[in-house]
Amino acid sequence: MSESSSLPRAGLALAGFIVITFCAPLFGTAAMPGVWHAALHKPSWNPPAWIFGPAWTLLYTLMAVAAWLVWKHVGWRRPLLPYFVQLALNAAWTPIFFGAHQLGWALVEIVALWVAILLTMVGFSRVSKTAGWLFAPYLAWVAFAAILNFTLWRMNPG
Amino acid sequence: MSESSSLPRAGLALAGFIVITFCAPLFGTAAMPGVWHAALHKPSWNPPAWIFGPAWTLLYTLMAVAAWLVWKHVGWRRPLLPYFVQLALNAAWTPIFFGAHQLGWALVEIVALWVAILLTMVGFSRVSKTAGWLFAPYLAWVAFAAILNFTLWRMNPG
Repeated sequence: MSESSSLPRAGLALAGFIVITFCAPLFGTAAMPGVWHAALHKPSWNPPAWIFGPAWTLLYTLMAVAAWLVWKHVGWRRPLLPYFVQLALNAAWTPIFFGAHQLGWALVEIVALWVAILLTMVGFSRVSKTAGWLFAPYLAWVAFAAILNFTLWRMNPG
Repeated sequence: MSESSSLPRAGLALAGFIVITFCAPLFGTAAMPGVWHAALHKPSWNPPAWIFGPAWTLLYTLMAVAAWLVWKHVGWRRPLLPYFVQLALNAAWTPIFFGAHQLGWALVEIVALWVAILLTMVGFSRVSKTAGWLFAPYLAWVAFAAILNFTLWRMNPG
């Protein structure tokens, strides 16, 4: 691994990637689960609500560390561009699902998000296998979330 | 960075470090903030309760990634020993503070934890500067938590 960046700069960059990454869920907090979500028909395997906070905190942290590792290796180069695209798609899902209650559009959006995550992961893996691995739990979770989104869309027509 | 470990093994190890690390807070969940904690005298700068869950999830994730990076570099060697010592001390604080209501003993314990985190961080930094940096937010947060513990101990005698 290139350790060329100075240490305080690397520490600040880690903090920066964490702060920028955790901006994504802030878009959604205003429209978080409420009466509408509680009234949806849900499958038996719908996870309990308390899982989502810790799970997303873990996943946002892993993806921020992955982006920071890529930055440490190559600086502000092309592999970081899809990272910010997938982060924007990630931020947009909650307002579509929990804000606008558009289960179908949210499904389209989360499939696009999953593809963006996969492309980011492939680009990251070329720079650092470690950064690629840090994306694996996120890719798996969003696949699960997409299946859950699909199921909720089918169970709650109109 | 040594990329000698095979890929599925590296991915499993990342999952393993995350699972082992998140065992530490499980010891405390049975005795989490309740009536006793709500009744304590608190300083004006005591953070709101909702901060602690996301903050600790972020910090446990960062420390697990750091330990995994050290494992990737040197395998099961000496730098990982203090990691498990600090993790055990981390796990013990919540039962002492929230379970036994021993603010003074909790203070002694958290100072020992801070020293163990510092020693782990120094050892990790020698193997990987990245792993060392991933410990910096944790060291800073536990310093803050120790000052908060001290303040609560002084404000709530007996």
